[in-house]
Amino acid sequence: MKYAKPLPDYLVRRYHGWKATTYQESKGWYRRLAEDGQHPRAMVISCCDSRVHVTSIFGADQGEFFIHRNIANLVPPHNPDGHHHGTSAALEYAVRGLKVSHIIVLGHSGCGGVEGCYQMCSGEAPELDDPKSFVGRWMDILRPGFEELPKGDKAERMRTLEKASVVISLSNLMGFPFVSDAVKDGNLSLHGLWHDIGEGALEAYDAETDGFVPF
Amino acid sequence: MKYAKPLPDYLVRRYHGWKATTYQESKGWYRRLAEDGQHPRAMVISCCDSRVHVTSIFGADQGEFFIHRNIANLVPPHNPDGHHHGTSAALEYAVRGLKVSHIIVLGHSGCGGVEGCYQMCSGEAPELDDPKSFVGRWMDILRPGFEELPKGDKAERMRTLEKASVVISLSNLMGFPFVSDAVKDGNLSLHGLWHDIGEGALEAYDAETDGFVPF
Amino acid sequence: MKYAKPLPDYLVRRYHGWKATTYQESKGWYRRLAEDGQHPRAMVISCCDSRVHVTSIFGADQGEFFIHRNIANLVPPHNPDGHHHGTSAALEYAVRGLKVSHIIVLGHSGCGGVEGCYQMCSGEAPELDDPKSFVGRWMDILRPGFEELPKGDKAERMRTLEKASVVISLSNLMGFPFVSDAVKDGNLSLHGLWHDIGEGALEAYDAETDGFVPF
Amino acid sequence: MKYAKPLPDYLVRRYHGWKATTYQESKGWYRRLAEDGQHPRAMVISCCDSRVHVTSIFGADQGEFFIHRNIANLVPPHNPDGHHHGTSAALEYAVRGLKVSHIIVLGHSGCGGVEGCYQMCSGEAPELDDPKSFVGRWMDILRPGFEELPKGDKAERMRTLEKASVVISLSNLMGFPFVSDAVKDGNLSLHGLWHDIGEGALEAYDAETDGFVPF
Repeated sequence: MKYAKPLPDYLVRRYHGWKATTYQESKGWYRRLAEDGQHPRAMVISCCDSRVHVTSIFGADQGEFFIHRNIANLVPPHNPDGHHHGTSAALEYAVRGLKVSHIIVLGHSGCGGVEGCYQMCSGEAPELDDPKSFVGRWMDILRPGFEELPKGDKAERMRTLEKASVVISLSNLMGFPFVSDAVKDGNLSLHGLWHDIGEGALEAYDAETDGFVPF
Repeated sequence: MKYAKPLPDYLVRRYHGWKATTYQESKGWYRRLAEDGQHPRAMVISCCDSRVHVTSIFGADQGEFFIHRNIANLVPPHNPDGHHHGTSAALEYAVRGLKVSHIIVLGHSGCGGVEGCYQMCSGEAPELDDPKSFVGRWMDILRPGFEELPKGDKAERMRTLEKASVVISLSNLMGFPFVSDAVKDGNLSLHGLWHDIGEGALEAYDAETDGFVPF
Repeated sequence: MKYAKPLPDYLVRRYHGWKATTYQESKGWYRRLAEDGQHPRAMVISCCDSRVHVTSIFGADQGEFFIHRNIANLVPPHNPDGHHHGTSAALEYAVRGLKVSHIIVLGHSGCGGVEGCYQMCSGEAPELDDPKSFVGRWMDILRPGFEELPKGDKAERMRTLEKASVVISLSNLMGFPFVSDAVKDGNLSLHGLWHDIGEGALEAYDAETDGFVPF
Repeated sequence: MKYAKPLPDYLVRRYHGWKATTYQESKGWYRRLAEDGQHPRAMVISCCDSRVHVTSIFGADQGEFFIHRNIANLVPPHNPDGHHHGTSAALEYAVRGLKVSHIIVLGHSGCGGVEGCYQMCSGEAPELDDPKSFVGRWMDILRPGFEELPKGDKAERMRTLEKASVVISLSNLMGFPFVSDAVKDGNLSLHGLWHDIGEGALEAYDAETDGFVPF
């Protein structure tokens, strides 16, 4: 069934504005990007959350970051079973095709996906336990993080679980042979970050202390 | 295995710059975004390609678009089999959780994923036929588009296939019951776009003529 | 005659520090830069002055800017006479070889070369009039700027002359056929900036008003 | 003809970020640099190549290095013929005006200018033989290096020629009376370096053995 509606006017107007200004002023660069193809230095794996703009935080130019965004910035375990794996395909393309030098996993505060996982694991959201719940089955990736949560108040445990989404993704990344090989060869480095939306803070995962350190 | 490296210096400096300016000037807004949670009007499904910045093209503010990015902006068919489905989870969260009013599928020129599909289907890239190729298995979603390509020169066929990645995604979207129900109820509309990176052009899918029309 | 001395110790130590940290943390990126070659978006023409670090001001990553630095950020008039022309060679390489999309001419406050020109033109530095003075003959490029200076106090006239070094360079740039052709084709844009070292200010040349405007 | 375009947005934002952080944190130092003028210890002559950041390799502070950058870090022979000589002017200013104590010539791997010279001299790039080719006429400075290349494979010969660009520049430097006088008086020392971009290696020219030695 073919179905589509015209774009809302306000987006059409904004596009025309962009074309007449940002594009017009850098036309040569856009043409070169089109002709030369992309040569991004880094892949970023971040959340779909509308409040997270990695290009803004890092002052990124067009062409700098290869960006995959999914719920809760998760990397599933390596599982080459012949089915569709969007995240794994993006990873394979970035590392083997584009040969990026960095993979940055960017978590954030107030993550709805992480909250869903928390509720599901603590029995507050039985609908997410349904085998047909896509969100539930996706958030299963984060279950091991919930099981290791220390006791404490919910806000603190939620924050810890948000950071676990970064650490589990980093760990799953190393389960992809093409990732761990590139890391061992010194051609790729992995980075874990957690961003506090309200405070604008950024913390980096430190593997030695297994904790997060503010910049 | 826990592994992570410090972020490259130039990104740390750029982050500090962002914190002291963009964040500082709109601190109140960031705090409200954190407290109120996100209320995006639209979900965008675009490619991971580093040259596609949907927030730039549409002058997006923090909080406006819920953005999922994967290789070739593909939506796989509805398949609730209990496995991890990143794209389907993002969709479910956007439509059922956030109740977005629009889903915009944004394709683009020079898409490396689409080119891979083209090569795979025409026998030029046997490595993508390997059951263990994540990129190959992901691009299987676009196979029906290759089979319907008209004869012609490669550049034209490639462009047609890029646009097919949008149309097939729109069609697969309607296979998700929560999507088609929301469309039928008038609560959701779907939009297909194709962006020419070098020329800055934007074309919209028109369901009536089953073709793309420039803005 | 072959002559060279060992590098001072403090630089050897700093190099070893860089190698063990900055290089080590981004080894993969350095290797890729070496294999893929450079794809800079912009050429920057700035002064040799030790206080002007364009990579710092613009948070530049390795590979972003093709940088030519000479006394007073000057572009001489187009003069293909078969002799050595370092600036013209750098321009030709950037525009025809690398196909950069932007050329940024960056002037600055307290420019010693501009001051030399001022003194030479006002008769205070006869040694610069000597045909054998390399600095004098290089600063001849800026003479037309001196002749158009409004009356006023010396500090103000010096600042105006510093800005004239940017405007004259922009004008000379357009005298290179490969530059003006690329500008006309929309593949290249030119930008003039003046930087106040002490205040950290940056002003941009605006062609419409023929003046400089602070950011 | 007056022509200029506004600076791309991402650079404007990055500048504002720099101003609010790096500049703000060291405002006093920037003001002193502005008031006292520059007193650099060394002049560096390096290539325009976007991958060579001498300030990074040597952890340079603002005010430390007077930096001239041209294609292939070349110093032309001393030739006071009354024309514009950008490199010679920079040299004269550094040695006679600023009285620097060191001149460092920094060559590097994968130098496009050196490759152009190689192709021109071996008949592969006739367009560079054109008297109007600025790049060709500039690379003529390196011709004597090509003529002395030992037989061998191209990659090895290219690397030897890159190092010859450093040695020829050192030799031409000594042809400038104000340079050789300062060297003889013990007020100036010259240094030749070659940098491997991919490996992060640095080699120093040793006049006694007429070869390069890794650090």
